[in-house]
Formats: sequence, structure tokens, C-alpha cells
Amino acid sequence: MSFEPRDPHFERRVRDSFSRQKAMETLGARVARVAAGEVDLELPFRDDLTQQHGFLHAGIVTTVLDSACGYAAFSLMAADQAVLSVEFKVNLLAPAKGDLLVARARVKRPGRTLTVVTGDAVMVTGEEEVTIATMVGTMMALENRPGLVS
Amino acid sequence: MSFEPRDPHFERRVRDSFSRQKAMETLGARVARVAAGEVDLELPFRDDLTQQHGFLHAGIVTTVLDSACGYAAFSLMAADQAVLSVEFKVNLLAPAKGDLLVARARVKRPGRTLTVVTGDAVMVTGEEEVTIATMVGTMMALENRPGLVS
Amino acid sequence: MSFEPRDPHFERRVRDSFSRQKAMETLGARVARVAAGEVDLELPFRDDLTQQHGFLHAGIVTTVLDSACGYAAFSLMAADQAVLSVEFKVNLLAPAKGDLLVARARVKRPGRTLTVVTGDAVMVTGEEEVTIATMVGTMMALENRPGLVS
Amino acid sequence: MSFEPRDPHFERRVRDSFSRQKAMETLGARVARVAAGEVDLELPFRDDLTQQHGFLHAGIVTTVLDSACGYAAFSLMAADQAVLSVEFKVNLLAPAKGDLLVARARVKRPGRTLTVVTGDAVMVTGEEEVTIATMVGTMMALENRPGLVS
Repeated sequence: MSFEPRDPHFERRVRDSFSRQKAMETLGARVARVAAGEVDLELPFRDDLTQQHGFLHAGIVTTVLDSACGYAAFSLMAADQAVLSVEFKVNLLAPAKGDLLVARARVKRPGRTLTVVTGDAVMVTGEEEVTIATMVGTMMALENRPGLVS
Repeated sequence: MSFEPRDPHFERRVRDSFSRQKAMETLGARVARVAAGEVDLELPFRDDLTQQHGFLHAGIVTTVLDSACGYAAFSLMAADQAVLSVEFKVNLLAPAKGDLLVARARVKRPGRTLTVVTGDAVMVTGEEEVTIATMVGTMMALENRPGLVS
Repeated sequence: MSFEPRDPHFERRVRDSFSRQKAMETLGARVARVAAGEVDLELPFRDDLTQQHGFLHAGIVTTVLDSACGYAAFSLMAADQAVLSVEFKVNLLAPAKGDLLVARARVKRPGRTLTVVTGDAVMVTGEEEVTIATMVGTMMALENRPGLVS
Repeated sequence: MSFEPRDPHFERRVRDSFSRQKAMETLGARVARVAAGEVDLELPFRDDLTQQHGFLHAGIVTTVLDSACGYAAFSLMAADQAVLSVEFKVNLLAPAKGDLLVARARVKRPGRTLTVVTGDAVMVTGEEEVTIATMVGTMMALENRPGLVS
């Protein structure tokens, strides 16, 4: 699918907003790629983000997937809109072990108010890539809300 | 609902396993309460865990909810079983602002292999408490898997 | 929780709209109870609605839960609004066998545009009641859409 | 993705089991295609399966998606296993209007006990096809359960 962005400066807008997500900096996540309706984020494996078996915590994987899905939706929104997550569901497919977590989000259906996004999370180790989780989420466009910057 | 735990030492087992979740220490989460089929976790608000609008990131809220739900299920498992998240869904109900995040997980239906758990997340500020998210998840009991400690 | 309905005639509005859901009549479902933010629906067991093992099909259970959740949200909406399901998730907890399916939906958080609703489905046989499924869904209020009656 | 079926007679097994789902016959659904890990089902539009706005009821769409996802998982199971739905989530993307509902399910990750499946539902009218819903679900393989035929 290919989408027509409403704001030609969507990539800058996505990267600026991402840089204000302090949780992303705390976890060590970064933007790998931005296109209209598509955002990839990366998180290098860190031992201090693991659960009791030494894998990345499912919630940490979800945090990166949620940001990727939110920004994929945000890339198609108007310049004065903000984005909030309405809901998401995650299925965990394999243990999150490896060198690098990559979350790839793609808009499934853009809408005036609600946008549905899917995201796959993979763990990369050398040349090998294993899909470890998949998300489907609903993102909401907010307008004119005082106190919300985009 | 009240449940009969299979392992009388379930509280120690939950607290020991929680202490091995390095992500929980990194985020600053702690165990507030453990009962058979019920676990409450707490996370004091931290500015470095926020999204772009200054609220706790939905993924961070999910991380605490997931651990709470996982350990609620784990509290009813046998002493030699480990727990893994199969899937969860989160609905975000209000912005996660306030002093303290509390995630309260309750087992909805325990099972031999799969246990369904619900969890509510609230933000507490002084006397006030606002429900900000709700999770429904499926947790799996694993047995005799080499390399997995419970 | 108790809710203040915006339309004092909400019960009539719910029952009228339900009577226009031809799928409900085809399946044999009926309204058991309507309150502000709460709707119970019933479906007597029918052999022609089963899956391959002779239980009620999970999709049929979902159909009744979805209508119950939609109308629980609808009961709190304004008189000129229509309701549509945005998304729902269902966890199946036990085989759907018994005499009567009862779906009980309760609004979890009402909103101007989106309302989050939870619903439990039970199978009743004589005095016994078994919870067989649970739903969490998001319902949307629509205004001024030509062609949509409420 | 391509999968190696454990039972070479998987197509017959899927079609036989589908023919025992009385709900499918009641709704008028049929098997359109079976491959290893892939099942397409079809349901011609019927006015008596609609909700209050004249679209196919979201629950009816879900019923067909659930059967498609269940049988996609079942196609990869061993000859003596039965399948049950553990959970699914559906996002509704557009009104279900048109001549024919087609549900296309694809296994995302097969497993010994649990299989994750995704399914898209489209409405077809002449040459046009609109995606109206998407499902992600977890299906469980059951062995040696007395009283369950596959």
C-alpha cells in the first residue's frame, strides 16, 4: 500500500516528536526509517531490560512497537494533529534474544480520527532475523488540545 | 474469586522471580502485594519514562501490567513451572499522569497450560486514583525447559 | 460504577435499535436487561449454531457479546448518535455448552467519541453458571452520518 | 511463508471438520481454498445477518474469520489433533457491505501447542474488493481429548 501524506514535512515531524519521547532515550531506541505510513525503530539488546529468563521483557518490546505504530500513524496526520494510542494487542511469538530489536510498523487503514496499524518485531543476530512479536493497534488523531504538542 | 495455590511458597517464588526481572529494577517498579492469583505492582512516576506529551509511555504502563499479570498467573503454578506471556491486549483509558502507577492483576481463569488474567492500571495522586489502562492477557505455564529458571 | 445517561429514553432507544439487528433475530437472541451503561443479552442454545465439537461457535458467542457491548455504550450516548464497533478482543475460557448463553456488558470508561466496554459470557444450565468468554471492546459514537439510523 | 504439513491429507481433514460446523451451514459459509497454513472462506451477503445499519454484523464477520483462522492452524496439525480458539482480536476497518464476504487466514507462527494466525476479511462487489476487518488469533492443538472429534 502507498499513502499520500497530508504534511510534506512528515519525516521531520516524526523525528522531532520521537526525540521528545524521553522513554525512548532511556531505553536506547532510535529511528531507523521513516516513510509515509511506515516507521522502523531499533533497540540494541540491553541486559538491564530483560525479564527473569534473560530475554527482552515483553513490555519493552511492546514499548518500541507502540512508538513505531504511533509514529507510522502520525506520519499520515495533518501538521497540527497529535497522536495517542487507543489500544493495542501483542502476540509474543518467540523469545526476544539476539543483538538488535527492530520494530517495523505499517499503516493498515488510515482514517480521519482513527488509524489502524500493524507492527512486527524481529530480533537480529548477525545475518539472522527472527520474528518475535506482532502488534495490531488503533491510533487516534487529536486536534486543538491545549497542552499537547505533537 | 479465590484460588487454591499449588505451591504454598508462592509468594516467595513470585518475589524471587520478580527480583530477577532486571527491567523492573531499571524502571523502578516494586511488588506492592502478592496473594493467590493476585499481584499488585507499583511504579513511581519518572520523567524519563514519558512519551512526547509528558505522560508515562503506554508501553511502560504495559510493561508493569504485563509483569503483574504474569506473576498473578505464576502465583497459582506449580513450584517447577515457569511463566511466559502468550499475548495481551491493552486499552488506554486516560493519560498516565500522577505520582504513582499501580497495576493490579487478577486471575480470571486458571488453567493447566494457559491462564487468563486481567489487570487494571491506575495513577494515584494524593487521595485521588484514576484508571488509565486495562489489560487482558494469556499466560502459559512451561515445564522442564532447560535454561529457564522460574 | 454508575453513569448519567445523556438521553433519558435510552432504554427504548437500545431496544428499538436491537430490534433492527436482523442478525439477532436470526440467531434467536433477545434483550434480558438494559440499564445505563449495562446491557444483558440472552441466546438459548441451538444445535445449528455449533462448531465441530458441538459447542456454540466462538463467533456466535462473540456476536452476542459484541451486540451487548455496543448497546451498553449506546445506552450512554446522545439521542442523535449511532454506535459502531471499532475493535474487540475475546478470550475463550471454557467450552460453550449449556442451555442458555448470557452476555453481560458493562461500560468501563465512557468517552465523547470512544467508549470502552467489557463483557462476560456465561452458559447457564439449571442453577449452574460457567463463564465461557470475556470481551474488551472499543465502541465509537457517530454523529450526523447520512444513511445511518441509530 | 511456506509450511510443511504434518498430515498429507490435511485438505480433506479441514473440509471434513468444516462440514461438521453447523454454524457455517446456518450462515451459508463455504470453503473457497485450502493450502498448508492457509484457508479462505466465503459468505454471500445475507440481509438476515445484518446489524442495525444494514451491514453484515461484526460478529458474523468474526465468526467466518475465526473459522478461517482455526482451519488455517488445523491444516498444519497432526492427524489426531483437534483445534480450539484460545483468543482473537478483531479490528473493524470499514462497513461490511457488498455482495460477498471473503475471509483469508494465514498462519503467522505455527507451534507445537499454540499457533498464531492472521486473517483479513474483504467485501467483494463485482471487481471491487474492500478490506473490512482484520483478525489476529491464537489457536490451540488438543490431543487425546475424549469426546472431541477433530
